[in-house]
Amino acid sequence: MFRFVTAGESHGKELIVILEGVPAGLKLKASDINVDLARRQQGFGRGARMKIEKDAVEFISGVRLGETIGSPICMAIRNYDWDNWKRIMSAEDIELGDKTMQLKPRPGHADLAAAIKYDRCDLRDILERASARETAARVACGAVCKKFLSEFGLKVYSFTLNIAGVIADMSGLGEEDIILASENSPVRTPDRKAEKKMMEAISDAENKGDTVGGVFAVVATGLFPGLGSHTQWDGKLEAKLSMALMSIQAVKGVQFGLGFGFASKKGSEAHDEILYSKKTGFFRKTNNAGGIEGGVSNGENILVSCVMKPIPSLKKPLGSVNIRTKQKVAAEAVRSDVCAVPAAGVIGEAAVAFELSSAIKEKFGGDSMGETKNNFDSYQKQVREF
Amino acid sequence: MFRFVTAGESHGKELIVILEGVPAGLKLKASDINVDLARRQQGFGRGARMKIEKDAVEFISGVRLGETIGSPICMAIRNYDWDNWKRIMSAEDIELGDKTMQLKPRPGHADLAAAIKYDRCDLRDILERASARETAARVACGAVCKKFLSEFGLKVYSFTLNIAGVIADMSGLGEEDIILASENSPVRTPDRKAEKKMMEAISDAENKGDTVGGVFAVVATGLFPGLGSHTQWDGKLEAKLSMALMSIQAVKGVQFGLGFGFASKKGSEAHDEILYSKKTGFFRKTNNAGGIEGGVSNGENILVSCVMKPIPSLKKPLGSVNIRTKQKVAAEAVRSDVCAVPAAGVIGEAAVAFELSSAIKEKFGGDSMGETKNNFDSYQKQVREF
Amino acid sequence: MFRFVTAGESHGKELIVILEGVPAGLKLKASDINVDLARRQQGFGRGARMKIEKDAVEFISGVRLGETIGSPICMAIRNYDWDNWKRIMSAEDIELGDKTMQLKPRPGHADLAAAIKYDRCDLRDILERASARETAARVACGAVCKKFLSEFGLKVYSFTLNIAGVIADMSGLGEEDIILASENSPVRTPDRKAEKKMMEAISDAENKGDTVGGVFAVVATGLFPGLGSHTQWDGKLEAKLSMALMSIQAVKGVQFGLGFGFASKKGSEAHDEILYSKKTGFFRKTNNAGGIEGGVSNGENILVSCVMKPIPSLKKPLGSVNIRTKQKVAAEAVRSDVCAVPAAGVIGEAAVAFELSSAIKEKFGGDSMGETKNNFDSYQKQVREF
Amino acid sequence: MFRFVTAGESHGKELIVILEGVPAGLKLKASDINVDLARRQQGFGRGARMKIEKDAVEFISGVRLGETIGSPICMAIRNYDWDNWKRIMSAEDIELGDKTMQLKPRPGHADLAAAIKYDRCDLRDILERASARETAARVACGAVCKKFLSEFGLKVYSFTLNIAGVIADMSGLGEEDIILASENSPVRTPDRKAEKKMMEAISDAENKGDTVGGVFAVVATGLFPGLGSHTQWDGKLEAKLSMALMSIQAVKGVQFGLGFGFASKKGSEAHDEILYSKKTGFFRKTNNAGGIEGGVSNGENILVSCVMKPIPSLKKPLGSVNIRTKQKVAAEAVRSDVCAVPAAGVIGEAAVAFELSSAIKEKFGGDSMGETKNNFDSYQKQVREF
Repeated sequence: MFRFVTAGESHGKELIVILEGVPAGLKLKASDINVDLARRQQGFGRGARMKIEKDAVEFISGVRLGETIGSPICMAIRNYDWDNWKRIMSAEDIELGDKTMQLKPRPGHADLAAAIKYDRCDLRDILERASARETAARVACGAVCKKFLSEFGLKVYSFTLNIAGVIADMSGLGEEDIILASENSPVRTPDRKAEKKMMEAISDAENKGDTVGGVFAVVATGLFPGLGSHTQWDGKLEAKLSMALMSIQAVKGVQFGLGFGFASKKGSEAHDEILYSKKTGFFRKTNNAGGIEGGVSNGENILVSCVMKPIPSLKKPLGSVNIRTKQKVAAEAVRSDVCAVPAAGVIGEAAVAFELSSAIKEKFGGDSMGETKNNFDSYQKQVREF
Repeated sequence: MFRFVTAGESHGKELIVILEGVPAGLKLKASDINVDLARRQQGFGRGARMKIEKDAVEFISGVRLGETIGSPICMAIRNYDWDNWKRIMSAEDIELGDKTMQLKPRPGHADLAAAIKYDRCDLRDILERASARETAARVACGAVCKKFLSEFGLKVYSFTLNIAGVIADMSGLGEEDIILASENSPVRTPDRKAEKKMMEAISDAENKGDTVGGVFAVVATGLFPGLGSHTQWDGKLEAKLSMALMSIQAVKGVQFGLGFGFASKKGSEAHDEILYSKKTGFFRKTNNAGGIEGGVSNGENILVSCVMKPIPSLKKPLGSVNIRTKQKVAAEAVRSDVCAVPAAGVIGEAAVAFELSSAIKEKFGGDSMGETKNNFDSYQKQVREF
Repeated sequence: MFRFVTAGESHGKELIVILEGVPAGLKLKASDINVDLARRQQGFGRGARMKIEKDAVEFISGVRLGETIGSPICMAIRNYDWDNWKRIMSAEDIELGDKTMQLKPRPGHADLAAAIKYDRCDLRDILERASARETAARVACGAVCKKFLSEFGLKVYSFTLNIAGVIADMSGLGEEDIILASENSPVRTPDRKAEKKMMEAISDAENKGDTVGGVFAVVATGLFPGLGSHTQWDGKLEAKLSMALMSIQAVKGVQFGLGFGFASKKGSEAHDEILYSKKTGFFRKTNNAGGIEGGVSNGENILVSCVMKPIPSLKKPLGSVNIRTKQKVAAEAVRSDVCAVPAAGVIGEAAVAFELSSAIKEKFGGDSMGETKNNFDSYQKQVREF
Repeated sequence: MFRFVTAGESHGKELIVILEGVPAGLKLKASDINVDLARRQQGFGRGARMKIEKDAVEFISGVRLGETIGSPICMAIRNYDWDNWKRIMSAEDIELGDKTMQLKPRPGHADLAAAIKYDRCDLRDILERASARETAARVACGAVCKKFLSEFGLKVYSFTLNIAGVIADMSGLGEEDIILASENSPVRTPDRKAEKKMMEAISDAENKGDTVGGVFAVVATGLFPGLGSHTQWDGKLEAKLSMALMSIQAVKGVQFGLGFGFASKKGSEAHDEILYSKKTGFFRKTNNAGGIEGGVSNGENILVSCVMKPIPSLKKPLGSVNIRTKQKVAAEAVRSDVCAVPAAGVIGEAAVAFELSSAIKEKFGGDSMGETKNNFDSYQKQVREF
């Protein structure tokens, strides 16, 4: 299996991610990762910080002469603004003075709950780590995973389904259309009409010092039956994907296929009838299940969508309480975005790519790409001949 | 932390669950568990099997003289119908003959995908373990966890929000009303009007050989700030709860608080303003977040809801393909329920109770109930004085 | 990877083990397991209990019609003496009276330390779980793993190297000799001269109400380079084997190959020079490393030996303190063995078999035996052609 | 619990370690860590590289204004010689030419086994990560853990017991003597006579192009009963310590207390009789068990010793085979040490400190130092009053 952890504060010197389990021999370039880091920074509705930082990855370990060598892949993403932060984020025991302290917790963030938990009197000690800045490290990790998946014919993409209640209409759009249109859209949605309204909603919120949320979809293609397992609660593919997606900052809901729409479907309408052709083997008439049945991928595309709550850092801040004086105050106003749903889709891709990569490694084993691919090919033959 | 695994096939001799991490000294009786096992078996829309089995737990280990002793708690749930199954489910290498084989995979179940994965020619080898029967073991585990939580003032309950598209109206109902009304409802919903329509929808589906799904809510009360962590992706409380809930058979979506409703809210409407009173400390004006911010419980009730797809075993079966002959067939018709949403709520309680118990153990440590409770009390003081 | 947990008290109704990760399609019979359960119960120096219990395994799940089906394998080992214990080990809150309580902790056992940890006033709550009886469940688990390993040509055996300071002389003995002679020896040692002295030492200790310990060796054959990994501390094969072996009751030391003998060797004498022949590929002149270098199996036999301390339950008990009165007393005299080193070897086999199986599953993946073996075969080809 | 991973190649840009689980509010300075990094680099018998590198740690995350903040602690250790290596260790796909390739595997290292596993044609891809250089990152991690332990009155130290078969005589030396004498010894042994002979053995080996191994002891003081658990195989303290210690490069054996000496002891001589005094509570007459019984700390010092094989990189190299040509060759001669046993003790301290810290966190929970210490204090009271 794959394993990853991230470290780093939002305004710290750098973000670090360590990813383990990638077989040796995967071709990998910094540019493979930087593409996704850039995609994460774009999107209509992003704040000023996105312009300061032009994220780029540096390989610290695990990659040599253009390919992985089996050891932990460690990547660093520098904070280009570090000089302006190195005093306030210093590891050394220097005296900053009370005025630098953050005392006004923002509703919707970990600020208050985690400050109580960790017993911190400066909310900065919490918000620096809770910040969605951390997802840059996850996107770097996910980009490596996407490269890994591509060797097996899997692809992961995402797009925006809903911003501020404006719902994209996908009808009539094929996969390639969706990808192309979304990548060229400032809000990463394939529906040009919805795009316009979404952007208006964002601008409107911005003018009012407000923020908006939405829904993004992540799709994985090129699948085959057999990732994940029905045999134990913690082996189910939907459960693992769900954990990875729900761990993304601001995500409050995850659904597969029809998702909450299943509630108003009959069994006879809801499930995906099984068909067979000599050429393609088993396949489905529909894909309401979103590609997973009983915790196991069934070979259809994996379809998952997630809701992102509106960003809780508001220019016109919400009511709060000073944690020291206990007086009513307006919450801390931290420089932030108006809408990050387009970026969230990219982060969602990373989460899905990680879990699918991990599932592939678990199923096929292998310590070199040649070995893993060989095992993969043998299984594909088994699938075809089942 | 807590850890649990289950074992057992649907028609096997017994289901087993092993739960680890419960401190010594928790008072525990079989009846504490059997109450929930019974609740799981009830509900309008359940099939004949629920009447055959009257589940009861037997403690195999970990409980002595009425209390836990710190060792793994192992519980068994007998299959009272075992005599009728012991031949077909025999561990011994006996010859059953081809006729007993299940060859017609049911869309919506793990049948086909997992048969390919595990390379089985009899679908029974898959469906016996993939069956929702396994959740009886999880409910037993969850009942122990609920007992554990009750020592800290936490309670977990559930109710039905939606069956077949009929949505319960909770307006004006307090916590106690909801619990009482739901527990007395054949479909575990507190809204009497909706109850009637839900039952009609179930009856209607039954008459047509069809099934229906729905949405259940799980609520945890008595919380305090500080369960879960914002510091790493796999430490976030929502992520863990989400994994546990999405691992339940037939659950296809999980959302916290407003969930997918966040997509059409502005930031200024969405977040829960922070208030403070000397008596109660920090609290919130609303609870849209469902009690978790940044992966950490904030002290408000935890509110989570899950969608359950319609049961895929239909009396009037869906189209499928015989895995041996590759001919079009109707899927296997396995005796089943028409609607299991009311039961799913009880299983959801178990999932939530397990994860909250695990988070409490992780936060407060302790190997005896006295120690864990003492640590808990000290922290509550810290919270009050923050 | 494989995963296992055990549950059950020494005098409880039954011991349970759940083993996960075994691919579907492994042929398995109860007799495959019972052979090892019997081997664990034999050996000169065992107490009366070994005659009461004739351990046998019952499959609860995971095995159907003579083979594994991919689901968790759950096995139960009944306590045939349960009727005599069901009152004292009752899960129900019955009143036993003070006289049944164990208050006199035995030095060398978990009795006192764990009673303090778990805050128990009856030492039985500790000793029932800490007892080496639990290893029967591990041996059952290990026997399944040995069956799994045999499909890949791996074999795990053990023998006694030392009892009470009497050291077996293995010089001139080949693998088959060692196995045969050990299995036919009452103390499981291949050296007939040492055997006699070991038995005398055991008899002598028995006469004095004393106990003796010793050293057992575990050997795995049929290996190939590539199990375990050098890339992270917790992936090293020696580390994992060491954990599994040191977790066996009474084991206090583990060493690979020359082990502590390395301290007096020069580098030029210590390491295993690399040779190559077209027919066999790379091999070694010697096997001082015990088959593992840098955390990775190198293809030579894995050689590991463990020291077992003398059993701490003495007929002539050691000095202790009554945990209630705090008065000096003789420790509880619990019916026990004089020497269990021969049995410990069998338990050691189980530990090694589990870890090697887990490493094979991790390296080769696969959900059916056919798939795992196919992947294994491909890798063997890679090894030969390296 | 605590969790840590390291990343980084021996001649890579930097080594990284991420440590999670340390409560917020632990005072921490780089100098706390650098002291141990320096201790790891010293010792008679080290090679030239130790003079090039003067290891120092840089906090990347998790520490702010002189204390931990609860987030992952990430530390980097720069390679000061990076400029000389950045070409050969480049992550980019540059052409180095065949001459730079390492083709002659060293017996005793992971070189050959792992090259086959990961299918690498340049042994450098293996040896860079398998190198003991990685232990610098572990020592940094361990130094944080030692700081954590010191808050609970625990101390971890080490010394050399044996180099090249020269055994230190500790008789008559108290704890403080041992620590002081060892820290002032070029071979980290408290016995001045043995020290002289050990140094002679090292010099002698050096002159012959050879290397030597030995045995180091690690001692933890300030313990109390209750770390680790007897309840499951993977919860036993000895098992966890054993894994951590055996994962250290070149360690081939681990033993607690009397260790392999138990084989020639009778039960009546081997176990540590239990005594009690009002003032100190329960204690032991002896400490043969090395402070752990049944997988649980008993309050006595933890005593563990490990054997380190002679360093396999010899100036006068062993016989090997060129992996490309398959011709007999002398193994690669890599610049190395003659004896690293003194340094290994420091690494052993890190392993022990990590596992004890993890066990403390597991037992006492807590997210701030105040909370963890408060819970710890309550338990100490419980121990005294047991």
